Amino acid sequence: MSSNPLGNNKVMQVGMVVENIEEAVLAWSRLLGVEPPPITTTDPFDVSNAHYQGKPTPAQAKLAFFDLGQVTLELIQPIGEPSTWNDQLSAHGSSLHHIAFEIKGMKAHLRGLAEQGLGLIQQGEYSGGRYAYVDGQKQFGTVIELLEND
Amino acid sequence: MSSNPLGNNKVMQVGMVVENIEEAVLAWSRLLGVEPPPITTTDPFDVSNAHYQGKPTPAQAKLAFFDLGQVTLELIQPIGEPSTWNDQLSAHGSSLHHIAFEIKGMKAHLRGLAEQGLGLIQQGEYSGGRYAYVDGQKQFGTVIELLEND
Repeated sequence: MSSNPLGNNKVMQVGMVVENIEEAVLAWSRLLGVEPPPITTTDPFDVSNAHYQGKPTPAQAKLAFFDLGQVTLELIQPIGEPSTWNDQLSAHGSSLHHIAFEIKGMKAHLRGLAEQGLGLIQQGEYSGGRYAYVDGQKQFGTVIELLEND
Repeated sequence: MSSNPLGNNKVMQVGMVVENIEEAVLAWSRLLGVEPPPITTTDPFDVSNAHYQGKPTPAQAKLAFFDLGQVTLELIQPIGEPSTWNDQLSAHGSSLHHIAFEIKGMKAHLRGLAEQGLGLIQQGEYSGGRYAYVDGQKQFGTVIELLEND
């Protein structure tokens, strides 16, 4: 086990699932005093190659990002299922979902985390990078996301 | 309504409730590659003057803080009730609880947020400052904490 399995300690993103992303974007914009960011949709499976619990999933999500410097707030409204986003919204309603750290070398990090009992929940790709969510709910109190940008 | 009701946009803390703070501290320490921080207990009512839903509460919590630069991760294990920490743990298990912003002028900020429909859940004092949690769960997807350090 490395002395720092993530390779860095900087929280780069906090993500939350919401029932209605249009309303949540406006609420956050007012609170933060910033312009509403665009709402995008994650890529379909042929681009994202999204896998949930080891199997391909057609689930997508609407996303919006508030760039607040070091930390980005990510709003997520699930589209379809199965996904960790949909699980969270179904079980807990609008709620915080994950803390994200930027890493380099996804496969090696996932192996290291699996050795700590942090199993992979979901992973996928986006233009210029890839993500993985690992199940830290019980040990850590949160899903942990690894983000790797090329 | 001010153009930025918080007065700043910097996420300074992400808090989560956990079933067992001793275990969670060790898990986070291993993940982050840092020494385990001390576990402290919030002050009793005669010091904290803690109020939950407008009424005095004897509830306390064990706390541990991982200082990661701009962002501190706060682990919270509720002691007694009623508290927003205990509500969260009872309803959702170990899970993310809040995003905190540092503010100046608690009363004015709480008034401004109430005008946006963000009602006060809980507030209290600690050596050198005070906190308030406002109910952003539905609108924002999270409880929002205001922290004011003197």
